[in-house]
Amino acid sequence: MISINLKHSKVDNSEYKKLFETAKTRFLSEDLGFKRLPYEFPNLLSNFELADNLMKDKKAIVIIGIGGSDLGTRAIHKALNHPHYNEFIDITLNNEPKIYFIGDTTDPESISGLLDVLNLEKTLFLVVSKSGNTIEQASTFAYVRDQYINDNLNPVEYIAFITDPKTGTLREIANKSGYQTIDIPSDVGGRFSVLTNVGMIPSHILNVDIDQMLKGAMDLDELIKDSNLEDPVFEYTLNKFAQYKSGKIISVMMPYQYSLYEFAKWYQQLWAESLGKKFDINGKVVNVGQTPMSALGPVDQHSQLQLFNEGPNDKFFTFIRVEESRQNLNMPSNYKDVEQFEFMNGRNFQEILNFEQETTAFSLSKNDRPNVTISIPKVDAYHLGQLFYFFEVSVTLFGYVLGINPFDQPGVELSKNAMYGVLNKPGYEAIKKDFEEFKGY
Amino acid sequence: MISINLKHSKVDNSEYKKLFETAKTRFLSEDLGFKRLPYEFPNLLSNFELADNLMKDKKAIVIIGIGGSDLGTRAIHKALNHPHYNEFIDITLNNEPKIYFIGDTTDPESISGLLDVLNLEKTLFLVVSKSGNTIEQASTFAYVRDQYINDNLNPVEYIAFITDPKTGTLREIANKSGYQTIDIPSDVGGRFSVLTNVGMIPSHILNVDIDQMLKGAMDLDELIKDSNLEDPVFEYTLNKFAQYKSGKIISVMMPYQYSLYEFAKWYQQLWAESLGKKFDINGKVVNVGQTPMSALGPVDQHSQLQLFNEGPNDKFFTFIRVEESRQNLNMPSNYKDVEQFEFMNGRNFQEILNFEQETTAFSLSKNDRPNVTISIPKVDAYHLGQLFYFFEVSVTLFGYVLGINPFDQPGVELSKNAMYGVLNKPGYEAIKKDFEEFKGY
Repeated sequence: MISINLKHSKVDNSEYKKLFETAKTRFLSEDLGFKRLPYEFPNLLSNFELADNLMKDKKAIVIIGIGGSDLGTRAIHKALNHPHYNEFIDITLNNEPKIYFIGDTTDPESISGLLDVLNLEKTLFLVVSKSGNTIEQASTFAYVRDQYINDNLNPVEYIAFITDPKTGTLREIANKSGYQTIDIPSDVGGRFSVLTNVGMIPSHILNVDIDQMLKGAMDLDELIKDSNLEDPVFEYTLNKFAQYKSGKIISVMMPYQYSLYEFAKWYQQLWAESLGKKFDINGKVVNVGQTPMSALGPVDQHSQLQLFNEGPNDKFFTFIRVEESRQNLNMPSNYKDVEQFEFMNGRNFQEILNFEQETTAFSLSKNDRPNVTISIPKVDAYHLGQLFYFFEVSVTLFGYVLGINPFDQPGVELSKNAMYGVLNKPGYEAIKKDFEEFKGY
Repeated sequence: MISINLKHSKVDNSEYKKLFETAKTRFLSEDLGFKRLPYEFPNLLSNFELADNLMKDKKAIVIIGIGGSDLGTRAIHKALNHPHYNEFIDITLNNEPKIYFIGDTTDPESISGLLDVLNLEKTLFLVVSKSGNTIEQASTFAYVRDQYINDNLNPVEYIAFITDPKTGTLREIANKSGYQTIDIPSDVGGRFSVLTNVGMIPSHILNVDIDQMLKGAMDLDELIKDSNLEDPVFEYTLNKFAQYKSGKIISVMMPYQYSLYEFAKWYQQLWAESLGKKFDINGKVVNVGQTPMSALGPVDQHSQLQLFNEGPNDKFFTFIRVEESRQNLNMPSNYKDVEQFEFMNGRNFQEILNFEQETTAFSLSKNDRPNVTISIPKVDAYHLGQLFYFFEVSVTLFGYVLGINPFDQPGVELSKNAMYGVLNKPGYEAIKKDFEEFKGY
């Protein structure tokens, strides 16, 4: 189980405690899609056979995703697979499939660069999108589909969709052209969807222990339900909120394990998109949200720490540390001609890494910068599932107390609609005109 | 040449103009190490032969670096090489060396994971560090050296140093044990060192057009010198500073080309470490600095844009766009069963990408969020050199007007010394005691 050290983030939170108790009561009573997911292993199982069939004779999987439809899978892959996974497979002649990500940009160098290293006949593309309308994914899908047609291959054997069970463009295309599909529950939003088929189908293909991942989330959910209001997520979020109100407007997520860096990027979307909102109070617009940054220790000690220690005191730090590494490496114990490093003689690398985390927390605390240390015993499916669920609940509580809806994202519509306008999609003529005036055509 | 559109970042800057004129005059008159670098191609040349000898019979290069000693090289590699460079080399049976990075962490999974995919006999490790005292690099170097010894190979044939010409631990070790060395100029700090041997030796090994990279920087330097005070860097920084003073305390760097994402990370160190400083005014401590964030378009439109548009109005946005891609890709023009995407018929991918940048700028501007668009004709060595130099000069001017020293980093000493203490390095007993009290031993 995750454990939390709040000692160096203490602040008077009495003003907000009642609000958080109300938020937790609301959370417990509500029927939110993502709360159900830790308990849904049996429902996932039914799709694994389809996934296995799709992967038959394939050597690589490509996720065509963006935002909530790929960040979770990236986090799982980086956390649980070899640090140089695709290369490692080649070297060891391993039979696991390689994995690639695309569809999060329309950058032609990205698309053509990936096609350079793929064998299309041995590749399964998974288009992961609820609507299928996202420009980046739609254009990538259309381009990839065309490559298969040009090669006289039938795209429906190499491309499948993970999408809404009933509505949306991808669903329409699948119905018409026969692409295989796997469902995303309609009541779970993109950034909360990692434990749905969105993250679990790629995880199954990569042989991740999904049962354990869900169990990690489930155990935390049970703990939250069994605790009489106060639980680790509650305590963490209450403190963080009180610090936010006292001026810590930036939230830095800083794991010390390289394998958790993509998890920090997943967190960044969750925190930014859920909480960065505007609303009207008596005709006055109020903008709220805590800006998330992802950092990596000790890497960013040599990039960001100067600012963190001595710059504006406007940040709240969350460290993630791991007690035991999956690799037991020690420094050599016989130096001879490099006696300058004798002080590291025989030390365990993970021990050094954790000292780095502690001394960084020490320096931040000395500079009066609030920081919390989250500790997990090991990077594995169980604790990763727990980390996902921890922050999904945390951002929900934070959003409720902030008085906003943590599940929508109205602020991305304007640029999206302008894109449709520029590309002459019917129905977007007005915003096209608005955009062209802005540009000065 | 870089061009800049400041239209949507306008703010009254009259209050700061005089200060920036003074800062520019100071910059022009000072003998700063990094200003000399664009003109030093002939001096670099002398080391290329040594680098070529080191690489003889080698198939891979590994940079043991952290912060200023690897972020620049990472930026160059990602900007100018194939998006899947190492895999692409394998597939095309290309004779170029592969490249890897390590030494920015003591994470044992990172170290052992890299060793899994390397052939030590065919690898050159470059330890890039002025002092050689950095824990992450020192421990990685010691470990790698030990692997060679265990394999009965002589480490001096596989490991070389890029380090201070006279002082420091690496210099001592080299003198004693015969490691080959290449110099880093003493008067150039880590985060300003990309155009020294730190970035240029790896660039030479990777066949980057170094001459053009320096020429890009040089042409911008000449423009700055020839302009009567006002030049693009001056204008950009003056506006950015005025916005900072009016509450834009976060600086978002958002290129729209995947290949420039590591450049944004390089910028993040430069901006954070140079400007995040404290100083005393009449006994009162003042903390200054603008917190840099790196983002990537359009990827982060589906992660951060909600916050950027509707969250707190505390950010200044710098877009980097590229007019011409190195890959000329078009959408297919015949859709048949995916008529939903007909509106993208035959469109050029780079054109779509640049529309995405423009519509994002449009939505930010509509929400009153200041944003600047930097445009370069193409991602190539020339314009990358120009981008590096642009922000080195910019951060210097910003720092001068802020009244701090942009070239030091006193705020990282505390945790560094605590690490030496914890690891029982002689001379660090007092801080060890302080740290242990903090931890509660």
